[in-house]
Amino acid sequence: MSKADCSSLDLTLTRIVDVPKEAVWRCWTEPALLLPWFCPQPWKTIACEIDLRPGGIFSSTMQSPEGVTMPTGVGCYLEIIPNQRLTWTNALLPHYRPSLTLEKCGSDDAGFLFTATIDLQDHKTDTGLGTRYTATVLHADAASAAKHAAMGFEAGWGAALDQMVAMIKQGI
Amino acid sequence: MSKADCSSLDLTLTRIVDVPKEAVWRCWTEPALLLPWFCPQPWKTIACEIDLRPGGIFSSTMQSPEGVTMPTGVGCYLEIIPNQRLTWTNALLPHYRPSLTLEKCGSDDAGFLFTATIDLQDHKTDTGLGTRYTATVLHADAASAAKHAAMGFEAGWGAALDQMVAMIKQGI
Repeated sequence: MSKADCSSLDLTLTRIVDVPKEAVWRCWTEPALLLPWFCPQPWKTIACEIDLRPGGIFSSTMQSPEGVTMPTGVGCYLEIIPNQRLTWTNALLPHYRPSLTLEKCGSDDAGFLFTATIDLQDHKTDTGLGTRYTATVLHADAASAAKHAAMGFEAGWGAALDQMVAMIKQGI
Repeated sequence: MSKADCSSLDLTLTRIVDVPKEAVWRCWTEPALLLPWFCPQPWKTIACEIDLRPGGIFSSTMQSPEGVTMPTGVGCYLEIIPNQRLTWTNALLPHYRPSLTLEKCGSDDAGFLFTATIDLQDHKTDTGLGTRYTATVLHADAASAAKHAAMGFEAGWGAALDQMVAMIKQGI
């Protein structure tokens, strides 16, 4: 059960998963539970920083199969409703400072700005109470959304979610 | 009593004003009370939109002495602690969408990104209970802060505050 939607500005991934939303929430908000699933294999997440409050930092560092580390950028939490909604953006640094410098603006490595929200809702499945999981990513313009889609948003976020669900089923 | 401080990234204006912080808060958060003071004369603020919640819109439109209207951009509230702290940014649009498009990024009219906070604290003055008023504006880089300073941050925000205080004293 998978649904991907791409309006011109936003990317959305909606999935029904047969694990409780409280477990999904923990996997998104506890560093030790985020590391194992956050990055699709064979890449790894080797570090992350979570200061779970509005204005707090969310950042992670990936490692390639060849052992090259790659910071994935620093984000700032905006909305935190336990077991229900988590929103952060890379348009702001911690304490809400704008992230994009004039120097970097317009250069090829500027990447793209986004605001991501994970929404979790109870959802009855054949095997019990599962979760309706929706990831929504807002961009400033269609070009940024297209760039993010081309980087593999749907496959990447979907594969990471699969890894998370498998981990939860093994027991966390 | 005025103090302006400019680190390389931030601009700050601290003033002691002899009006209560609850009145200052209302002037920042009620459209009808914001219009008369928000823009240093002879410019006028002719419209503003305030959706006072995290993720809500804050925008205003100015009019030059010659009658030319000029939208001052759309911002998004981040922190709202009544009578104490108000934070918004123009790095995000309402609902936390990043504001800076790839198209605009790097162009001369990109302006600069900022996050502004108004902090209000009780402060005893000779004439009663006043307010310690601090406006802090965070930028992504020193170039943006310098651009904002050159546009007259201190004089502009100070003059607007003077207008607000005069209005409160006349009765709101």
